[in-house]
Amino acid sequence: MDYAAINLQQKLAKFSDHWSPKIIAQMNDYHFKLVKFKGDFVWHSHEDTDEVFMVIDGEMSIDFRDGKVELKSGEMFVVPKRAEHKPFAERECKIMLVEPAGTVNTGGAGDKMTAKDNIWI
Amino acid sequence: MDYAAINLQQKLAKFSDHWSPKIIAQMNDYHFKLVKFKGDFVWHSHEDTDEVFMVIDGEMSIDFRDGKVELKSGEMFVVPKRAEHKPFAERECKIMLVEPAGTVNTGGAGDKMTAKDNIWI
Repeated sequence: MDYAAINLQQKLAKFSDHWSPKIIAQMNDYHFKLVKFKGDFVWHSHEDTDEVFMVIDGEMSIDFRDGKVELKSGEMFVVPKRAEHKPFAERECKIMLVEPAGTVNTGGAGDKMTAKDNIWI
Repeated sequence: MDYAAINLQQKLAKFSDHWSPKIIAQMNDYHFKLVKFKGDFVWHSHEDTDEVFMVIDGEMSIDFRDGKVELKSGEMFVVPKRAEHKPFAERECKIMLVEPAGTVNTGGAGDKMTAKDNIWI
């Protein structure tokens, strides 16, 4: 077994693109991913799963059709399945996502922002 | 829906006992828990699930029968299912755990350190 710690800052230093989650760990059939947000994402939902957002560095918000949550470093939120949401970050924000392996970043909203592949870093 | 962020430091300030995980969030059938470690835990394993350790503040280690991992703030590790492990922290360390709802902290090793209930904070 590989007894190496997974260091979030070291992993974050390995990429600079926005809105394209990178896998850093797998627990059962769930992936832990890092992603950098900047600007507006698309409205979308995930029909089959909740999705965890945890802010590592920076600030972001998630708009819902009937509300909004603001998140900063050290804060997390669970987006319930089927809830339409739109992430936003005024300045670059570094986030950890936790969701089932195979979850598509844009959910059911086929869009140019759909990440091609979820790659491991 | 409750659009409140879950703030890890605010949650950590709500308890002071060691080795007794508190639930702060649920994603599908998984729980996110906070726990404070100090000293030696018991050798144990989880037969049916991997388990994620993410250090929020401090340093800890996890002994395995054939190795060891050292973790500090901003680092995580996935303990594979069935792997015997023993967490340790020389000084108090604050950790987030991610694992299926109902996971017992001591796994199959019935022990006085078994947390009575996993309570929400």
